[in-house]
Formats: sequence, C-alpha cells, structure tokens
Amino acid sequence: MRKIGILTSGGDAPGMNAAIRAVVRIAHYHNIQVIGFERGWEGLINNSSRELDPRSVSGILQLGGTILYTSRSSEFEHEEGIRKAAVNIGLNDIEGLVVIGGNGSMKGALALSKETSSRIIGIPTTIDNDVSGTDETVGFDTAVNTAVIEVDKIRDTAVSHDRIFIVEVMGRNRGFLASMVGFTVGAEIILVPEVRFEVEDICSAIKENASKGKRSGIIVAAEGIGDTRALAKHIEEHTGTEVRLSILGYAQRGGSPTARSRYLANRFGNEAVRLLANGEGNKVVCLQNSKITSIDLAESCQATKPLNLKLLDLAKILAI
Amino acid sequence: MRKIGILTSGGDAPGMNAAIRAVVRIAHYHNIQVIGFERGWEGLINNSSRELDPRSVSGILQLGGTILYTSRSSEFEHEEGIRKAAVNIGLNDIEGLVVIGGNGSMKGALALSKETSSRIIGIPTTIDNDVSGTDETVGFDTAVNTAVIEVDKIRDTAVSHDRIFIVEVMGRNRGFLASMVGFTVGAEIILVPEVRFEVEDICSAIKENASKGKRSGIIVAAEGIGDTRALAKHIEEHTGTEVRLSILGYAQRGGSPTARSRYLANRFGNEAVRLLANGEGNKVVCLQNSKITSIDLAESCQATKPLNLKLLDLAKILAI
Amino acid sequence: MRKIGILTSGGDAPGMNAAIRAVVRIAHYHNIQVIGFERGWEGLINNSSRELDPRSVSGILQLGGTILYTSRSSEFEHEEGIRKAAVNIGLNDIEGLVVIGGNGSMKGALALSKETSSRIIGIPTTIDNDVSGTDETVGFDTAVNTAVIEVDKIRDTAVSHDRIFIVEVMGRNRGFLASMVGFTVGAEIILVPEVRFEVEDICSAIKENASKGKRSGIIVAAEGIGDTRALAKHIEEHTGTEVRLSILGYAQRGGSPTARSRYLANRFGNEAVRLLANGEGNKVVCLQNSKITSIDLAESCQATKPLNLKLLDLAKILAI
Amino acid sequence: MRKIGILTSGGDAPGMNAAIRAVVRIAHYHNIQVIGFERGWEGLINNSSRELDPRSVSGILQLGGTILYTSRSSEFEHEEGIRKAAVNIGLNDIEGLVVIGGNGSMKGALALSKETSSRIIGIPTTIDNDVSGTDETVGFDTAVNTAVIEVDKIRDTAVSHDRIFIVEVMGRNRGFLASMVGFTVGAEIILVPEVRFEVEDICSAIKENASKGKRSGIIVAAEGIGDTRALAKHIEEHTGTEVRLSILGYAQRGGSPTARSRYLANRFGNEAVRLLANGEGNKVVCLQNSKITSIDLAESCQATKPLNLKLLDLAKILAI
Repeated sequence: MRKIGILTSGGDAPGMNAAIRAVVRIAHYHNIQVIGFERGWEGLINNSSRELDPRSVSGILQLGGTILYTSRSSEFEHEEGIRKAAVNIGLNDIEGLVVIGGNGSMKGALALSKETSSRIIGIPTTIDNDVSGTDETVGFDTAVNTAVIEVDKIRDTAVSHDRIFIVEVMGRNRGFLASMVGFTVGAEIILVPEVRFEVEDICSAIKENASKGKRSGIIVAAEGIGDTRALAKHIEEHTGTEVRLSILGYAQRGGSPTARSRYLANRFGNEAVRLLANGEGNKVVCLQNSKITSIDLAESCQATKPLNLKLLDLAKILAI
Repeated sequence: MRKIGILTSGGDAPGMNAAIRAVVRIAHYHNIQVIGFERGWEGLINNSSRELDPRSVSGILQLGGTILYTSRSSEFEHEEGIRKAAVNIGLNDIEGLVVIGGNGSMKGALALSKETSSRIIGIPTTIDNDVSGTDETVGFDTAVNTAVIEVDKIRDTAVSHDRIFIVEVMGRNRGFLASMVGFTVGAEIILVPEVRFEVEDICSAIKENASKGKRSGIIVAAEGIGDTRALAKHIEEHTGTEVRLSILGYAQRGGSPTARSRYLANRFGNEAVRLLANGEGNKVVCLQNSKITSIDLAESCQATKPLNLKLLDLAKILAI
Repeated sequence: MRKIGILTSGGDAPGMNAAIRAVVRIAHYHNIQVIGFERGWEGLINNSSRELDPRSVSGILQLGGTILYTSRSSEFEHEEGIRKAAVNIGLNDIEGLVVIGGNGSMKGALALSKETSSRIIGIPTTIDNDVSGTDETVGFDTAVNTAVIEVDKIRDTAVSHDRIFIVEVMGRNRGFLASMVGFTVGAEIILVPEVRFEVEDICSAIKENASKGKRSGIIVAAEGIGDTRALAKHIEEHTGTEVRLSILGYAQRGGSPTARSRYLANRFGNEAVRLLANGEGNKVVCLQNSKITSIDLAESCQATKPLNLKLLDLAKILAI
Repeated sequence: MRKIGILTSGGDAPGMNAAIRAVVRIAHYHNIQVIGFERGWEGLINNSSRELDPRSVSGILQLGGTILYTSRSSEFEHEEGIRKAAVNIGLNDIEGLVVIGGNGSMKGALALSKETSSRIIGIPTTIDNDVSGTDETVGFDTAVNTAVIEVDKIRDTAVSHDRIFIVEVMGRNRGFLASMVGFTVGAEIILVPEVRFEVEDICSAIKENASKGKRSGIIVAAEGIGDTRALAKHIEEHTGTEVRLSILGYAQRGGSPTARSRYLANRFGNEAVRLLANGEGNKVVCLQNSKITSIDLAESCQATKPLNLKLLDLAKILAI
C-alpha cells in the first residue's frame, strides 16, 4: 500500500478531525501517502483533493467539524456518480480509501466498493451511534455530554418554575442519543422511536409524580418520535401542568470532542490504516466489548443495531 | 428597619440565587431579619414564606435557578391579588421588600408600592437586559456566554457543510441578547426587533459573501423578530444556499452564573439592603457607567431602554 | 435484606453523589431501607448517620463531591477502629453495606468484612482508576475530561510562546489518568510511574522535534513519577528551550460528572443492590469489557491492575 | 495612513486573536494595509512579518493564544534592540503600529515611540488587568471565569472533606485577578499583595468560622503575596484543620475568550485603528466607566492602577 485517500461524509460529528489526524499520522508511520478529498463523495466525483502530511493535521485534534468539509451528495446516490468516483480513485492510484462518516456513508462506501478494486475501510463517526457492528461511534460521547450539560441547565428552570420540560435531542430515526442522555440526566420519562408509547400513560405518570410531590420533570425525547410540539400541547392540556419544549439543535454536532471521542478516533484511525497496510478492505472498524476490531462493510450495512431497552427500565426506577 | 421580605419573580435568570445570598447576608450584617416568599407574588398572596439566615443561603452562589422558586402570577395582575399581597406584608411586619426579577416584575413592584407603606427595592435580574435605568442586569452576561458557546459549536457544522445557520436567541421583544451574541461570535448578520430589515437585503448580503468566497455564515436573530422558520425557508429558496435554523432554548436561562453575573448580584444585593437600611424605597438598583446606583421604580417602568445600534454597525464591518 | 448502610470514603470523585442516589433509589425499589453514614469510616465508628429515602437524594445526580462527606480515617487503620465499626453495624441491624471509594477504601472494606457478618459491596469510585477488576471507575472519565480541557488551554500558550509545558496530573502512584490524558490531548511525551524513563531521552526527543519544526510541546506527567519541578529545570538547561510546569490540582477531583461517570454510577449502584438483595456480599462491582459484573473483594485488593502500555506506543506515533 | 504594523507581546491572553482580527478588518475598511510581525518585538527586530488581510484572520475570533506568536524579548530591553526595531519600521514604511499586550508591552511601546516617528497605539490585553488607564483589559474576564470554574470544583472537595483550600491564582505582583475571583466564588479570605496581612489573623478567622459551624473554606491568594506553600503549612499547624494548596496554572491564560473579552477586543481594535486613521498616536485605548476612550502611553506607563479595596470588605461580609 503506497497511497490512500481519505474523506469525511454525511453529517459532521465531533472527532472527525481527530480521526483524520490519526489516519494521516499512522499512514505516515507506515510510509503511506495520504490524499484528502474535500466535501465527501463530491471531492471524489470532482477530483478535488490535496495531499495531507503529519504537519497539515497539526492542531486539529481538539477541533469540531472537519477540515476536509463534508456534504450529502445527491450525485453519489446515482450509479453515474459512483462510477465517476471509482474512475477518479483509479486515476489517482488510490489503493485504499478511508471513509469517515455515519450509517449513510457506510452504505455509500459499500456501493462504491462494488465499482472499484481499491480497498475501503469505514470509520464510524456520527452522533447518532447507529452504525451496526460497533458499540460506539466517534462523536457519540461528545453529543451525549453536550446534551447533558444543556439539560442540567434546563432543569434549573424546570425546578424554579415547577414545570415539565420536553427536551428533544437528535439521533435521526434512532433512540441511542435520547436514551443515554435521559439515563444520565435522571429524566422522569424517555421517549425513543424503538418503543411505542401512549400519550395517556405519560400524562398519568406526570400526575402520579405530582401526587408524590414532584412538581417539575424532564422528558427526554428523540427527534425520531415525531411532533414534540403537539406532544407538549397535549400533555399541558391533559395534566394542567405547564409544559415547555426545548429542541437542542445543531450544537449537539459541534464542539471540541470529549476524551472518549478522541480516544475512539485515535484507535479507529490506527486500526483502519493497519487493515489497509495488511491488504484488507471493505470493512468497518468497530469497538466491541472494549476491543478494537472490524466487521464486513456489507454486514454492517444490512444489520440494524439494537437499542439496549434495559437502560430505559433502569432509568424509570432511578427517577422514582 | 428590622425585617424585610425577599422574592424572585418572572422568568428565572442565572444569578438570582447569588442575589438572594447577598441580600440575606448583608441584611444579617445590618441586623435585619429576612423572610423569603416562595414562587414570586404567589408567595406574598398566599403568605407562603420561611425565614432565611446566612446558613440557609450557603452553597447557592454558583447555582442556576432560584431556591425561592418563581412564577408568573395571574392573580397578581388584578387589583385584588395586589391588595392581598399588601395585607400579608403588613401582617408579617415586613418593612422593606426586595423584588428580584425583570421588567415585568419591576412593574408588579410598582403596582404593589401603591398599596403598601413597606419600602420596595428592585434588583434587575433577567437575561433580556431590558430593565430601564441599568446598563446591565444580573444574568445577562451568563446568557450571552451560554449562547456564544453554542454558536461557536454550530459554526463548526456551518463551516464543515458550507451552510448558513440562523441561530435564534431569546430576549423577548428586545434585541439586547441577540446583538451582544452576534457581536461577539462574529455573526455575518444580526437581526433585532429594534431595526427593520428586508429579507431581500439579507439574501443579497449572503450572495455577496458567497462571491467573496465565504461559503458559510451565521445569522443571529432575536426571538422578537418573528417567524425565523419562514425566514430560513425564504432565504434558502432565494439564495440557493442550504439554510438551517437552530433555536437556542431554555438553557440560556439556566446554568451557573458567570463571574460578572455574580459580581452584579453581590453589588446589587448590597446596594438594595443599604438603601432599605437608609430608609429609602421604591427604587431599582442599577449599574450606570460601572457605578452602582439606583433610580426610581416608576421611572424605570416608564422608560424604554435604548439599544446601542452602533454595535450592529461595527459588527457588520468586523464580519467582512 | 431489609436495611443497608452506605458510605463514601477516601478521596472524593465526581459521580459519588450519582452512586449514592442510584443505591438509595434501587434499594427503595427493592423495599430496602438505607442508612447513610457520614465522613466514611468515621461515621461507622462514631455511629453518625441519617436515613436516606428517594427524596433525600433528589437533585444530587449532577453534583460533584459527596453529600455524605468523606475522610481518610486514621482510627480505621487500627483493629480497634474496625471493631467499633463492626459493632455499630450490628447495633443498627445493617445487613448489607455499600462502600463507595477507591483502592484504599476497598482494602478497608475487606478488613471490615472479617469482623462483621454484614455483607459488603464496594463501588469503585476514584479518579485514579486503580481498582483491580474493573476496566473503569466512576469519576475517571470526568477527571480525564477536566484535565483534557485544561491541557487544551495550556497548549494555546505553549504554541503562542514556542514553549514546552510539563503538565502534571493526579493518579497517585499509577499512570491511568496521565496515559489517557496524554493520549487524548496529543501529548508529545507521556510519563507514568509504570515505565522507567531517562531524562536524556526526553531531551533528545525535544531536540529532534525542534529540528522537525515543532517549536512547542506538551509533556503529560503522572504525579507518581516524582519531582516534576526538577525535571522541568533539567530539560530547560539541557535543551535550551523554555520549559514551564503546570500542576493540575484538586479541580480534577471535583465538578459535575460526565455522562459516562453518571452511567457507571447508575449501573454500579443497581448491581450493588441487586447483589445484596440476592444475598451476595464481599464483592466489588465492575465493568469488564462493557459488561457490568463483580469480583471478590479479596481478589480486587490483592491484584495490581495493569496499565495498557500499547496506548503509550500509539501516542508516540500519533504525536509525530 | 496607508500601512500599519501589528504585534502581540509579553504573556498571551485570551482575546489577543480577537483583537488582531478586529484591527485587520477595521483597517481593511479604512483601506489601510496591515503587516503582522511575529513573536512580538523579536519580529520587529528580525523583520519577520507577513501581510494580513480579512481572510487571513478568519476563524480566529474564538481561539486562545495568538496567531502572531509572542515572546518576552531580552534584546528589546536594550537600546540597540529598540533601534533595530525602529529601523525596520522605517524600512517597511509602517506609519502606525498596534501593540497588543500588557503592562510590560506598553512600557516597550513607550520606549520604541521615542525612536520612531511611526505612531503607536497600545491595546491592553492581559489577564493581570494591571494596565493603568483602563478599567478592564482584554482577557481579564476570561481568566476570572476560568479560575471561578476551577474554584467551584475545588469547593466540592473542600466541602466533602471539611478542608480549607488555598487557591493561588495568577496576577503577577497585583491582586486584580485574585480579588475578583475571590469576590465571585464567595471566598472566606482573599489575599492580595496590595493589603498587608498577618498569618495569625487568618488562623483566627478560620477558627472563628469553625466555631460557627463552617467546616470548610476557600482562601483565594494572588501569586504576588509570596510563598503559599509555607502559608498552607503554617495555617495547618496553627489551626489543626487540614489545609490543601491548589495553584491554578497556565490554563488561566488560555482558552476561548468570553463574550466580554471578545467585546473589548472588538471595541479596542476599532478604536486603535480609528485613532491611527485620525493621525493620533502614542496612546493606549481604554475602557473608562463603560466608554471606549484612550490615554497617553506615557501616562499609562507612569501611573499605578489602584485596586478597589472596598470589594475586599464586601467579600468579607458576604462570606459570613
């Protein structure tokens, strides 16, 4: 392996820069040249790239966002775009490609792998934590902590005003972020797309809490559960309690990565280059039971990562 | 002066607890007893109170929210509620009353002052910074910094995705928070209710920035300007740039107060008790040109605090 | 099991309060009464305690420190103190005891277990991460992140001044904290007690970095390596580079716990009560390869937890 | 005015980059070219510089440190160094020079002003807040908040362990930082170089607090008061209370500037260029009673800025 490409794709996540730095420096250690493609698949399609050496990734470890930029490319959703990308990989003598991104990016990588002989390794990097095969993705721990700090502040107001707050967190159509945030802020109720719920049960729970002397409360809801604004209104009308909605926005995707997100980025970056140097490809690097390993790209794309529902049961007991 | 009351009213703000602590401890120094009324005017109306001594305000200086709770009392908007409050003041031998809150609370204090001989002092405490007479309110600096930290994170995503973000901050019908946040995050555009704007001008400015090579940008908008969701959609359609909206929520009102918010709370609390001990009343303590002073409650309630529009001009030049 | 005791002992760590809350609420769920002993072993020896119910642990999840206070008891180091504690356990009908603390506290728990029939469960809670049997202790992740945020700030000055900084972190006689902090801040050099080093090699590495154009650098050193002040002086004299020392102090032990520290506290608290309710005792709850489990107290006390030295090798390559 | 120089000198402070950005962009608005000299006076002496335009200061507003680097130049302390600098100013056609730094840098600027006809404007930027003429320097508010957050964490441990902590903060030979930090964290005792104190009085105060039931406490000490280690030992021996020392290190000088530090940097940068464009020079821009103004460089260098001692008296009452 003499030359590899690297790109970041899909929604940005804290730790993407740390992963880029790790890949570039580990590759340098293995005497492998690194070409950075800009704006995800777009950079491959348009052949927009620059060489990256250990100095060009100095001082980025702690920065949010991605120095390679990212995008959701519509062209790459069609076969023609994918073929253009494959052609450019060939023209640039790219023998291996590291794709840093989430679930959608892994699917893109799988599609591309069928059109190129270049070996592809995915580094799962998303605040949604929804990449199958890995217990945790780069960026997830940072987003959880960002949300936890916000909810801690919102609880100040909830308690001072005897109010119920619904806090909507990100996570697309999955509940990983919501369940971990809810579990660690002591939310009275946690709502995720994976678990059906009845609004009446929520109202009953709130009334019961009130009867026990709990005058305020936090409901953490995943964005994937649907219209939280309507939910807030419904609860307010049916419980007689003031309910406020706070939608935690894009700040969840930015900011300096936590130590754990940096740790994963470093380990994943190292494993990605090790696999490529070993002649392996079409895999996703993973954390499984605290060990760094990898699974087939195809396998990761087909499976649906299960959510630990026991955490929700425990959360309920802890919020007595 | 042997006995005073204290309450927090309206929306909570970081530093309310610091102000309570300051009033209680300074009063203790002057041998004045302090009664804390709970949930704002409601506590006065229902005579729900407890005595506060130096130990009962230990460890609260750095906490968001208010240990006295707060509310927006509908009963206090009517004369009967105000009279009930005045009667309870008399029954409790409350010779002075410290009202901690924002603009609305100062108006409530003024109304109450006409029904009681007890002397009232307001401590302006709101993230909106809209209390007339004081250059700055307790909590404003904290909310500004909370929002700035959020926008710094959002910029990571804006830059990585070549996107325009509209960040909506609080401030009710005024632009103090938005203009200070926009000025200190380097926002390309700042929108406040005090300044009329044309959506077309915003679109032109964004196109011009794009032509200069600026592919991303931050628009900081006060909640008072109206429907930011519609604005985002309009700009996206008329510029061809991706526009995202992030509404910074209730976290702006919570959290540990900054040093400056604590500083003001300490100084205001001291001045409030000093005035009462001197036999003065019906005033709002103020910061004017870095000096602690006070103005008449009526004067503060009648005037509209001007927004420094020059800051917006300077912000525009700095975001070249 | 009808009644258990709980105490926090040794150095405080972020997440102790979260662990107390979890134990109390899970015990309530199992209809077990909880008695909190104050100031660690001292509370057992002096029989200074209070009952804890779900409401008495409200609002403490996010607080640093410990509401039960803690201490290093000299009396408990002698057999007489331990016997007094055992007698009080009997007099209070305490059938189980949850000991929240670090390595030293687990050793104390083991000693106590030989004098009482009450079942003891340890919850490993220390920023040193040195309790054998568990991959991670409550508080470790928080301390790592606190230190990482500090070092990120110090790097601003290091880069601006072309200086080498030695940052001394805590960890007692072990290098867990230093190695994880160094790994995640991108430290050029990491010094831990577990690995012998020659000062000359450090000086050579710094000179080599300078020759590659790296004008600044961060050395993360565990407090257990010895006199960092002398080290700084030596390096300055032998390399001609300005070297500054910054000793990160007690702030590493305080502050609001991170999501991960809260997660562990919740899970550990649940497991501790589950074990007691099952009639098990004299164990330490653990995290092993992401699973919650437990090992014998005696086993945990005898073994020495190994430090992952491969992390240090990888850190070296990443800091090229 | 067609061309100005800019440099950062002395210890770095948060907001230096914000000040650079403001000067460069405001200068661009006035059609003035900006040359950045690197590593403070060294850059002037060695003629090491680069042109700065609005794009070259993009994305630096929120960064700690200084992109122009800084140093304490020994050569500049001698007349020959100053003359070399003056010659290079002439050779580069630099008509105005903006010097960003603290007290020492202002003195350097004054010395240089006597050897050059180029107009010099100082922007006071130091965490020590010791520049005479301005109520506040850029970076001071950030350092205060950084220290306050640390002390809040240390208090967790102090309370949990019933301990006294001495927290040493920076500030060189002045007490601005210590007094503001102590005032806003609720320190029981504040020690500054400007006020003589007897160790016996401190011991008495601690004993008195203990008798009132205060089992823990925070002493905030300026680094300028002398040997805090010896002080800790003395207090421990004479009060029988555990005393710990925590020296807040260089993190106080780094990190992202607070909103207020950015605000001052923006306003000061604007005023500096305005003065130069008006043909004025040899001044220091200042904040006086919330107004932006300026005073003569010589006047600022000769006077000693007074510390507000009343703050210390009020702090004492508040820490009852």
